[in-house]
Amino acid sequence: MEKLLKEITPKSQDYSQWYTDVIKKADLVDYAPIKGFMVMKPYSYRIWEFIQAAMDRRFRETGHENAYFPLLIPEHLLIKEAEHVEGFSAEVAWVTMGGDEVLAERLAIRPTSETIIGAMYAQWIQSYRDLPVLINQWANVLRWEKATRPFLRTTEFLWQEGHTVHRSAEEAEAETLQQLGIYREILEDLLGVPVIAGVKSAGERFAGAVQTYTLEALMGDGKALQSATSHFLGQNFAKAFDIQYLDEDGVLKFGWTTSWGSTTRMIGALIMVHGDDKGLRLPPRVAPIQIVVVPIGRGADRDRVTDWARDLVNKLSGEFRIKLDDRNEFTPGYKFNDWEMRGVPLRIEIGPRDLAQKQITVARRDTGEKIVIAENMVSETLSQLLEDVQRTLFEQAVEYRASHTFSVENYQEMAHHNHRGFFLGDWCGQETCADRLKQETSVTIRCLPLGADIAGTGCIVCGQPGQHRALFARAY
Amino acid sequence: MEKLLKEITPKSQDYSQWYTDVIKKADLVDYAPIKGFMVMKPYSYRIWEFIQAAMDRRFRETGHENAYFPLLIPEHLLIKEAEHVEGFSAEVAWVTMGGDEVLAERLAIRPTSETIIGAMYAQWIQSYRDLPVLINQWANVLRWEKATRPFLRTTEFLWQEGHTVHRSAEEAEAETLQQLGIYREILEDLLGVPVIAGVKSAGERFAGAVQTYTLEALMGDGKALQSATSHFLGQNFAKAFDIQYLDEDGVLKFGWTTSWGSTTRMIGALIMVHGDDKGLRLPPRVAPIQIVVVPIGRGADRDRVTDWARDLVNKLSGEFRIKLDDRNEFTPGYKFNDWEMRGVPLRIEIGPRDLAQKQITVARRDTGEKIVIAENMVSETLSQLLEDVQRTLFEQAVEYRASHTFSVENYQEMAHHNHRGFFLGDWCGQETCADRLKQETSVTIRCLPLGADIAGTGCIVCGQPGQHRALFARAY
Repeated sequence: MEKLLKEITPKSQDYSQWYTDVIKKADLVDYAPIKGFMVMKPYSYRIWEFIQAAMDRRFRETGHENAYFPLLIPEHLLIKEAEHVEGFSAEVAWVTMGGDEVLAERLAIRPTSETIIGAMYAQWIQSYRDLPVLINQWANVLRWEKATRPFLRTTEFLWQEGHTVHRSAEEAEAETLQQLGIYREILEDLLGVPVIAGVKSAGERFAGAVQTYTLEALMGDGKALQSATSHFLGQNFAKAFDIQYLDEDGVLKFGWTTSWGSTTRMIGALIMVHGDDKGLRLPPRVAPIQIVVVPIGRGADRDRVTDWARDLVNKLSGEFRIKLDDRNEFTPGYKFNDWEMRGVPLRIEIGPRDLAQKQITVARRDTGEKIVIAENMVSETLSQLLEDVQRTLFEQAVEYRASHTFSVENYQEMAHHNHRGFFLGDWCGQETCADRLKQETSVTIRCLPLGADIAGTGCIVCGQPGQHRALFARAY
Repeated sequence: MEKLLKEITPKSQDYSQWYTDVIKKADLVDYAPIKGFMVMKPYSYRIWEFIQAAMDRRFRETGHENAYFPLLIPEHLLIKEAEHVEGFSAEVAWVTMGGDEVLAERLAIRPTSETIIGAMYAQWIQSYRDLPVLINQWANVLRWEKATRPFLRTTEFLWQEGHTVHRSAEEAEAETLQQLGIYREILEDLLGVPVIAGVKSAGERFAGAVQTYTLEALMGDGKALQSATSHFLGQNFAKAFDIQYLDEDGVLKFGWTTSWGSTTRMIGALIMVHGDDKGLRLPPRVAPIQIVVVPIGRGADRDRVTDWARDLVNKLSGEFRIKLDDRNEFTPGYKFNDWEMRGVPLRIEIGPRDLAQKQITVARRDTGEKIVIAENMVSETLSQLLEDVQRTLFEQAVEYRASHTFSVENYQEMAHHNHRGFFLGDWCGQETCADRLKQETSVTIRCLPLGADIAGTGCIVCGQPGQHRALFARAY
């Protein structure tokens, strides 16, 4: 059993297999008996709950309310916005029977809810006094995907989707960026995942959007992960669904809408950004267990140590998510591996000698460092250590990204890095160049980073004058 | 506009229409553009969030963890437990297409998840050390219903479903009853809805269960609402899905399973138990707005009063869910009606005279009573009043139920009460009597109340010796 546990493929050997090993052995997910679906086990669902709580609080503080809209969308609604249906129709699961009856109209399981929500907003909004509408929904959605991986791309996934309506384009754009800012806080401050904020090129835009903003993170294998998006929809959906309001000046006007979403995919980012060859490394703010206590010793010693450890856990459990591992059937060595695999930020070891000297030994999951703490300093020191692990994981990720980000003047330079990493280069703005790059190298434009200026070295593909500074990478 | 608002049908005139009026005018729900589906607007979704938070905390305190299982269930899994499929197959929505492809096997949208969860548990459980498994899921489910009403019976609804596995029948039965106890706390202490706990007769049992426990509440029209259920599943699902564990004695044994669920239907109970001809009456513990403040006055007076009211709201907003209604476009009278319709427990009125005398006037939604409070006593008095409204609503509901509960010796007596109310009577235990009762009167056996003894007056239908004391009622 001990041997089995250690057997995860090293990252350097096969990153994809490493990921698969970690998510299974850290007890995050299991594969469901339907292709493309996963089961979120309690350990990963708890992480999702922490993300939800932190995000939901920020949504509420910025004036948003939660609501719930139907899972199923009649086909005639789904196809009202032309670009939108083109983007999603190939990915829709269709309900065609209810009980024994064949339905007159097929019903889509929501791939996203702009259409059904738009239809409701059209009824709810009459006057400028009804605006802005600021609603969020926590829900499951389905997209019939061909190639799936737990967290990163699954047929069903959990997410939140915000849908808002405003009186002006400016207000709607401000909302779009505000929500992107919330996602950045969640990813960086909570999950320790550094991101680059940018706008999507036309070819990568959300179907039906005027502008899509994105946060792009660099994974441990040098591939990018789109980690959250926020869309300024202009009046496209307002016109398709007839979302109009009578303005103060007595004129009937179309609203300006936004939508923004983030998903359980963020857990995938967390795993890939922080994980190592021993398994997960969880930032303390989202770790279901922040500290594990392992008593060490034999016979009567062990009992004494365990009693003392139990008292310690009881004393600290109001302050930390702390767990005593008093399983008799496993050795301390097995337990160390087990909790390292699950990414618990701090491990406390207590042996007879620690007991005698009124101290505990703490091992950090992020650095491997061991620290001895005197009994009277335990609570403060553990707090500081957790803060420090949180910060260190983020800093390590920032450093990794810095050392894997390259400015390029032409796309051939990417080959020196095996097309792995973030590449910054000028782009002429032509989709033909983006297409050629993708075909030849599988590299795509991840975003046009906010505030970045062209270097003036010409489009990395065609050499023509650059219109935008772009972030290029292979992507999940 | 003022006239429109007041126009809800009186309960006594048409209860069903009253319900429909209230849920729309109190801004709880809207009908979705698909038959049988509703949209939960922010005002009702917030109530659901309070229910979720209170319930989730209790689940966690009793050792349960949340997880998430797939929305879709392959047909071959759904039909594994014979009674279960018989109970649900007519109500299932089927996905038959993914993208442009016709699926080889149709997929059911979960009507409940015993089958898919059972299939996973069979893989997860190996040894007695893996037991008990105590998992809950917050999710949406679909049942293809013919006649629907918002909250009470909709095609899609939100719920939680707990699924546990145990080493012994005793432990599983204890779990079933413990969870029923949690539901009772939520319904009575949080929602102020008194319930009768009992066991379902065989004819009313959950499909596949050995024993179904239920909580039955009496609505304002004398009909019963099944408000939550908890099922002891014996080894039925363990055998169908091969959930086995190696026990300490080295013998491979089947687990004992339970499931238990509660839904957004509880919001329907809340509305019908407490609502009156002015609209909703919300118990303070789940009221999205506990206190509304309406400034009264004209011109400069109004401005002074509004400023003072705003300060008050800011001062109290850490303690209460309190809202200032400073809308200029409505009269105080309109606002009073509006917040009464939405069931806000306390309304504070502040006029120039109140300001001069350093006092506020509070109107209770439950009793209509008005109380004048000195400025320095505001916070304590509001706390007490909210507690008192919470208690009063529950007590009124208990009184209503007491005055509408009747002991009967034969079922003809029910006609004296138009078959409305709770009827307690002896039952011989034969399903033929239950069927006859239902056919002739639409009255059904709601449950066999826990701890109730037969009166010895004979079965209310056939007159044969009674086997059980039963609770009879027409039901939603």
